[in-house]
Amino acid sequence: MKIGIVGGTGDIGEGMAMRLSPIFDVIVGSRESDKAEATCNIHIETLRKRGQKCSLKGVTNQTAVDEADIVILAVPYKHLLGTLESLGGFEGKIVISPVNPMEKKDFFTFVPPAEGSAALLIKRLLPRSSRICTAFNTIAANRWKLLDEELNHSVPVCGDDQGAKQQVMEMVNRISKLQAFDAGPLGASNLVESITPLLLNIARYNKMKDVGIQFR
Amino acid sequence: MKIGIVGGTGDIGEGMAMRLSPIFDVIVGSRESDKAEATCNIHIETLRKRGQKCSLKGVTNQTAVDEADIVILAVPYKHLLGTLESLGGFEGKIVISPVNPMEKKDFFTFVPPAEGSAALLIKRLLPRSSRICTAFNTIAANRWKLLDEELNHSVPVCGDDQGAKQQVMEMVNRISKLQAFDAGPLGASNLVESITPLLLNIARYNKMKDVGIQFR
Repeated sequence: MKIGIVGGTGDIGEGMAMRLSPIFDVIVGSRESDKAEATCNIHIETLRKRGQKCSLKGVTNQTAVDEADIVILAVPYKHLLGTLESLGGFEGKIVISPVNPMEKKDFFTFVPPAEGSAALLIKRLLPRSSRICTAFNTIAANRWKLLDEELNHSVPVCGDDQGAKQQVMEMVNRISKLQAFDAGPLGASNLVESITPLLLNIARYNKMKDVGIQFR
Repeated sequence: MKIGIVGGTGDIGEGMAMRLSPIFDVIVGSRESDKAEATCNIHIETLRKRGQKCSLKGVTNQTAVDEADIVILAVPYKHLLGTLESLGGFEGKIVISPVNPMEKKDFFTFVPPAEGSAALLIKRLLPRSSRICTAFNTIAANRWKLLDEELNHSVPVCGDDQGAKQQVMEMVNRISKLQAFDAGPLGASNLVESITPLLLNIARYNKMKDVGIQFR
């Protein structure tokens, strides 16, 4: 299975690429393919030193979309609109949104777009045949990067296309100790996206780092 | 420490009274004191059979407010406004809101009032000297009642009065294996209240029961 990471050289994308490439064929997208290639070479070396084989290549964001079966939109919310307007070719693709619309003022708040969530904004922007799911929203960028530590978290997954959601949940369950949970239709994504500002507040007020969640 | 439970004979209040009364002096409020007394007698018998001593008495909701140091508003969101309009005497009291404004249509959604959260609605309705905290929002009624099982969950606590929040967190940490986390000011309560519809969706779509959370 080919996983394309749009924004694959960003903070979350980097860790995702390292975690996913020993399991799946990972296509790292960036605005400039040179940067994506350079990042991939570093990852390959990091993983080689750990004795891990991987499948990684660096390309443009558009090529990552074109070649992937599943596209992860690993971009900050503030760049989401611009990124999607610059890309095409999402017809029929499974698209994963880990995007959380939030702001930091005195504390972190959930600031969704008029659609109600980043996921529903993406739905409005992409072709109707794209199969959008929400996943990976609540895993901190730094956790992805700490390769010596298992990812021992729950991952709520929303989506309207049951087949796509099933594929995404199976993918999630193959990564470290992540455990996927069906969190309902795409319209319930706001409930998932609003967890991350809460986790950031909890980290701050309790002097913790990279807080995640488990359902139990 | 005296804990008053407004709505103490309701679904969540019943389990809370049983869990809290071996640790604290618990004053169970109800619209009718007869019902509160009858419920307390059943609890006392249940706990006696388990070899647990407890401090419990049944009174009206107003008496529960008047006599308590900490008041828990264990009422469903739809009864919150009516209940608060019928009560007085909250001046200077620590008031805990476990209330989650939500609706079930095809799935559970977060439907906050214009203030942004049930907690901020309560703040508008109560006297300025009341010290409101959000807590216990994400623990299912049934979990409170399953006395043979530890409550092994995280409890996010919001509030603007640091002293009150500290007292509430200390109280939380004395109950079973609950662990309190400072989740920021009262204005961040919407992030806590919106977890419960998510947990109800996850329970439904994954055939689980009484799902809770842990931060880790």
